[in-house]
Amino acid sequence: MNVSLTQKFIAEFFGTLVLVLIGCGSAVIAGSHVGLLGISFAFGLSVLTMVYAIGHISGCHINPAITISMLATGKISGKDAGAYIVAQILGAIAAAGILYCMASGRAEYTLAANGLGQNGIGDAYQDHYNVTSGLIFEIVFTAIFLVVIHGATSKNNGNGALAGVAIGLSLTMIHIVGIPITGVSVNPARSIGPALFVGGDALAHLWIFIVGPVVGGLIGGFIWKLYDKA
Amino acid sequence: MNVSLTQKFIAEFFGTLVLVLIGCGSAVIAGSHVGLLGISFAFGLSVLTMVYAIGHISGCHINPAITISMLATGKISGKDAGAYIVAQILGAIAAAGILYCMASGRAEYTLAANGLGQNGIGDAYQDHYNVTSGLIFEIVFTAIFLVVIHGATSKNNGNGALAGVAIGLSLTMIHIVGIPITGVSVNPARSIGPALFVGGDALAHLWIFIVGPVVGGLIGGFIWKLYDKA
Amino acid sequence: MNVSLTQKFIAEFFGTLVLVLIGCGSAVIAGSHVGLLGISFAFGLSVLTMVYAIGHISGCHINPAITISMLATGKISGKDAGAYIVAQILGAIAAAGILYCMASGRAEYTLAANGLGQNGIGDAYQDHYNVTSGLIFEIVFTAIFLVVIHGATSKNNGNGALAGVAIGLSLTMIHIVGIPITGVSVNPARSIGPALFVGGDALAHLWIFIVGPVVGGLIGGFIWKLYDKA
Amino acid sequence: MNVSLTQKFIAEFFGTLVLVLIGCGSAVIAGSHVGLLGISFAFGLSVLTMVYAIGHISGCHINPAITISMLATGKISGKDAGAYIVAQILGAIAAAGILYCMASGRAEYTLAANGLGQNGIGDAYQDHYNVTSGLIFEIVFTAIFLVVIHGATSKNNGNGALAGVAIGLSLTMIHIVGIPITGVSVNPARSIGPALFVGGDALAHLWIFIVGPVVGGLIGGFIWKLYDKA
Repeated sequence: MNVSLTQKFIAEFFGTLVLVLIGCGSAVIAGSHVGLLGISFAFGLSVLTMVYAIGHISGCHINPAITISMLATGKISGKDAGAYIVAQILGAIAAAGILYCMASGRAEYTLAANGLGQNGIGDAYQDHYNVTSGLIFEIVFTAIFLVVIHGATSKNNGNGALAGVAIGLSLTMIHIVGIPITGVSVNPARSIGPALFVGGDALAHLWIFIVGPVVGGLIGGFIWKLYDKA
Repeated sequence: MNVSLTQKFIAEFFGTLVLVLIGCGSAVIAGSHVGLLGISFAFGLSVLTMVYAIGHISGCHINPAITISMLATGKISGKDAGAYIVAQILGAIAAAGILYCMASGRAEYTLAANGLGQNGIGDAYQDHYNVTSGLIFEIVFTAIFLVVIHGATSKNNGNGALAGVAIGLSLTMIHIVGIPITGVSVNPARSIGPALFVGGDALAHLWIFIVGPVVGGLIGGFIWKLYDKA
Repeated sequence: MNVSLTQKFIAEFFGTLVLVLIGCGSAVIAGSHVGLLGISFAFGLSVLTMVYAIGHISGCHINPAITISMLATGKISGKDAGAYIVAQILGAIAAAGILYCMASGRAEYTLAANGLGQNGIGDAYQDHYNVTSGLIFEIVFTAIFLVVIHGATSKNNGNGALAGVAIGLSLTMIHIVGIPITGVSVNPARSIGPALFVGGDALAHLWIFIVGPVVGGLIGGFIWKLYDKA
Repeated sequence: MNVSLTQKFIAEFFGTLVLVLIGCGSAVIAGSHVGLLGISFAFGLSVLTMVYAIGHISGCHINPAITISMLATGKISGKDAGAYIVAQILGAIAAAGILYCMASGRAEYTLAANGLGQNGIGDAYQDHYNVTSGLIFEIVFTAIFLVVIHGATSKNNGNGALAGVAIGLSLTMIHIVGIPITGVSVNPARSIGPALFVGGDALAHLWIFIVGPVVGGLIGGFIWKLYDKA
């Protein structure tokens, strides 16, 4: 099948929209009911399902850290990578907007008090980890995420059909560990969308959720190259 | 294998019965023990298991919004679609009846107080979201559900064996987000069955859970056609 | 591969041992920590994993209600079925014994107070459902379980590799709904093992967990035959 | 593909690092939020994802008890086994170090009070089971783990693509049962890493988490040979 860049753009836009709407939506709308384990499954399952829904069109990156790691390992062209990242950021912004509309339908909701599932660090967030912990977490765990992605989709791997299950559930396990630290980004688009609406600390800390995942993603690609030959 | 419409009718009837009995049953009988996360897994796993149990016979729609979206994308005939929808609604009603019989075996149970897992909105439901939020939720998340269904079963998708896993778990993630808003329908049959027994607000709000999922399902089919060519 | 009945016997003995040790063990040792959702996953995952560990040897029945339904649908010989059921009951008894040994290593544990994960009904159990509810539950939900088993392993089903996932997770969803009613048997061996150690009400109610699952299993096979032709 | 021992060493080092960082990290950083069920999923999903990320390179043992059982069943050479075990222990130590760095970024964290997810038994641990219970648990449940591993990857098993799902989720079910007893090792490397940092009781009890899993792993290989012929 010959897939156009427009089709890939739509797929990446929609896939990232789903990731942010499901993941951040679970936190904002249902967080007090489903807990951090429920939020972790929401994020992971959004990726698992999108791999099978759009993976055959765009590869289902829906994350600039993945696209950049794919570019660094020669798996995507620069032109496509640029379009992917634009689509991902726009999809995340659209998702934050839809989530705000839905959440506002509850009288008790305010953007200032309840937010939109934005990432954060320090006094303004969860269990008050410092910036160093946040950066270590985002770098190390994005590296783990990318090793799973590169390894599970390697040409040397005969079980490619299961890659979506492994990749999606790896995002779940990463969230199970890290929500108390930063809320877990490992995906700059997922952080940018809500931060643009919430502003304040979310914008001030945004650099952590761009630098951390991008650096971690590059390290993940490097580790994968060390042990695999694809 | 040559499958008759009668066989498909039985499969759709039984599959929808299982979806409603497991999903609504988890809420009515075990909701206070397993929480919204447990209910979310119950709904999603009922679809996952039915895809592998009856999918090779009827395609496992067990949801009028799916059947109508399949009709609109030319994947099912009008005659079959009509039979499917009748089977789905009858299966959901049968499930609500069985659930009522089981639940009544507990002295503390009353239909008025405990219900049958019916959908709702506003003051009568969960976290008191308004009708606009409810409609946005049902439309947007049924659209997401249908994109997963069309994408995962696309002829261009080489991983069709995993479609049931992706589709079932997409219903889980949708429930993780949305139970506080409407209890999550995304399936008119699932809403009709309990509402006929419970009456009152459940019947008054039923239009939301017919209009929302049907419109969302058509939008999902449209989005899928934008990026896929199957 | 030519598999002897002795190999099948060992596989069924070990598989049922694992089902009871994991499922009942989760209730007795960790129930207060993991809740009914955790117990539901323990039971379901024990079946999922055993399908892939021993399924290629014995078909992984590890449940007399399954073996009898397989006998009624002509999928196993009477001789093999008898051996399977003996192995299953012995495996369940062995598991209850091992569980008792482990649980006794906690000073606070007593067989009378904490039990061994036995099934029950009425005043002696959970949410006090009556016997009628218990029987309806065991019959209807074992029928659902067997439809998943027959359907997912049907010769007409091209996705047989995923059958273990569907069958295992169907036991999880059944437990999510029904633990408050009977603790969920749908498997006479799983009920017999703990009941022999616990005695009392567990023995008195044992007939429910033999009659219910066997009748339900036969009904499930019948429903499956109605829509499938394999 | 011709894979060098160096590549295998890196894969086993990295895989064990991920297992310990995700599993023990979920306990230390998020345990009070996600509960024992969340920790159980973290451990299991770390193995599930690593099977698909590095399994095609090293077989993804990431556990000396597995490597020794593979050696005893003639599936790996002594030279490779030695290298695997060294890589696994070094990976676990590295993970404990990274986890300590991250956890220390929270003002309230102290190594003495919060630990690093180390295993234990008796008065110093969870629900105060005695050493006999701990040893029975580690032996029996590592045997179950190894039966799943040998069975799911057997040459007679036509569903090898799903082995990673079964093996990973078997570790989840083992944790659902056993965290209150020992915190669950079934993997000497996973116990050694945190114990070296924490010292005290964790070091004193370390023999249980070396002897138990190794003995259990050998028994698991023996049971598998009884029913399978691969």
